[in-house]
Amino acid sequence: MLNKLPIPIIQAPMVGASSFEMALAVSKAGGLGSFGAGAMAPADIEAEVRRFRTASDRPFGVNLFVLEAATPAAAEVDAAIERLRPWYEGLGIDPPAPPNDFAPDFQAQFAALLRAAPPLASFTFERLRREQVEALRAAGTYVVGTATTVAEAKAWAEIGADAISAQGAEAGGHRGSFLASVEASLIGTFALVSTIRQAMDLPVIAAGGIMDGRGVAAALALGAVAAQMGTAFLLSDQTGISATWRGGLERAGDDPTRLTRALTGRYARGIENRYMTTMRPVEGEVPAYPVQNRLTQPLRAAGAKAGDPDVLSLWAGQAVKLAGPGDAGELVKRWWAEAKAVAKELADRLA
Amino acid sequence: MLNKLPIPIIQAPMVGASSFEMALAVSKAGGLGSFGAGAMAPADIEAEVRRFRTASDRPFGVNLFVLEAATPAAAEVDAAIERLRPWYEGLGIDPPAPPNDFAPDFQAQFAALLRAAPPLASFTFERLRREQVEALRAAGTYVVGTATTVAEAKAWAEIGADAISAQGAEAGGHRGSFLASVEASLIGTFALVSTIRQAMDLPVIAAGGIMDGRGVAAALALGAVAAQMGTAFLLSDQTGISATWRGGLERAGDDPTRLTRALTGRYARGIENRYMTTMRPVEGEVPAYPVQNRLTQPLRAAGAKAGDPDVLSLWAGQAVKLAGPGDAGELVKRWWAEAKAVAKELADRLA
Repeated sequence: MLNKLPIPIIQAPMVGASSFEMALAVSKAGGLGSFGAGAMAPADIEAEVRRFRTASDRPFGVNLFVLEAATPAAAEVDAAIERLRPWYEGLGIDPPAPPNDFAPDFQAQFAALLRAAPPLASFTFERLRREQVEALRAAGTYVVGTATTVAEAKAWAEIGADAISAQGAEAGGHRGSFLASVEASLIGTFALVSTIRQAMDLPVIAAGGIMDGRGVAAALALGAVAAQMGTAFLLSDQTGISATWRGGLERAGDDPTRLTRALTGRYARGIENRYMTTMRPVEGEVPAYPVQNRLTQPLRAAGAKAGDPDVLSLWAGQAVKLAGPGDAGELVKRWWAEAKAVAKELADRLA
Repeated sequence: MLNKLPIPIIQAPMVGASSFEMALAVSKAGGLGSFGAGAMAPADIEAEVRRFRTASDRPFGVNLFVLEAATPAAAEVDAAIERLRPWYEGLGIDPPAPPNDFAPDFQAQFAALLRAAPPLASFTFERLRREQVEALRAAGTYVVGTATTVAEAKAWAEIGADAISAQGAEAGGHRGSFLASVEASLIGTFALVSTIRQAMDLPVIAAGGIMDGRGVAAALALGAVAAQMGTAFLLSDQTGISATWRGGLERAGDDPTRLTRALTGRYARGIENRYMTTMRPVEGEVPAYPVQNRLTQPLRAAGAKAGDPDVLSLWAGQAVKLAGPGDAGELVKRWWAEAKAVAKELADRLA
């Protein structure tokens, strides 16, 4: 599947940052576009897959967050809302009332995905059950499990995943770690790709810190079957990010990213802002994803509207300063041309 | 300097793990061998440089730890010794008396280095003064500054360093961070090399997670002028590590490394052992390097002798599982042949 792509570049699924148009442009260019469907209603997943197939016969991927249903105690939700009150009030609005639900039901999302049977499906946060992997494969879907450690890659291999998406420590957005603590699971892309390859024969997708054709060539040299790029598309024409997010990103200084648990209840990497620094001392106390995520959604939406990047989730990888503008499809073609030139130059130099 | 190396592989200076013979073998093979001279007496630095020059006319490097003189309060030293008492007693020995000095005097080491004028000198922990960089360059020494962030790379560029050693988060041993916290300075090799290259024109050495010819090819594809490898030499014939350390390394499981401050008073990456896990809750309280380092030296020496890896500093990078045996010079030649083959294969595939 992956080694048949004309261009072995996967556009990373990024909830709230990628878009239908981005995925379409990348797939049409010869790469593999992806939907970040973690926040989508089941019916929308099927509709988006149909819409893509109407627009193109190229392969594409759909990503889901593997999640248990959230059943937080009312007191925990109330406390979390109170903790957020100053941030809401800072924008002149009231914090939300305790919501009735916190995220789309994963089992329903999965059933919709199975019916839609996209060419590729990838999963993060937790691991599927073996029967789910088998059902997807029987439906003709190529199954990719996200791993941040060798142990997680082995866990996915064990239940029959087709490939591993190796999420290096550099990567922006949510960490996919599900076996060990986040501190024990921050393995740089160089080491993660190399050690997973050593441990198994499954194809490995390199993700984290890859921003241009040099990065693509480096990932392939390491032995990855494809390079997954997310942050590199954040400033593309098809970006799904708000103008406020874009502003925060364009103004970022050197080494701008940090991990935070305070925005969603799950560790994620983004450009450090006032919310992240202020909330760091209590980030261990906020409710786990998806509860905190749901409770900060109206805050982030209001911040985006008000032009205040300091209350947003400015998800971005460690090499975000290399992100640049352009049509997503043209970026893919340009990176691929660069990767070819780098490979040729390197081979000539080393000959 | 670096782009004239027959093989652009630098053997990382590793105090306690590299050796004179390792450096000599690497340089003779066409790479660049290094001395980890951070713990050497000034006279020994000059003697080792002379000894190398007698043995070979190949280039080599010397690495120093840039350190202020340590002047801890007696009470802090006493408390640190008491904290270590159970570990010493576990090996059946008494903890050390408060030492008179904690590390070789850096200014004296630097003066010796300047007199010895090796072809290359690299520095970590803190930054030199501009006059020191100028004096080394006037003596014909190529000056390399270690950076774990773009900001640190800029700081070295500002005072005239010739090149930057980009120490990615993957790297084993001590972190070279000197501007921001360790958490803010754990940037994966992919991202670190890319962002430093974007920020300046100085040659960048890639370090962290590079274990074989694929890694060397990937580092060069990213635009690094050379690949620095340390962990990859730990099991070589010329290793300086003890049999106990080697045992700890050979028995390591998946994803075995963590950062610790508890062994030396400065964050460093090694294979997690009982000392690291037990001391983690108090690692923020131990005296800063070199004080804690000096106080645990007899413990680690005794542990090595007793065959107990659980009290050692098992420094290693995140991809340590790829380390293998062999003559250090032959390893360099093998990795270079692999890198060439990878580059050719990649260029052919992408053509």
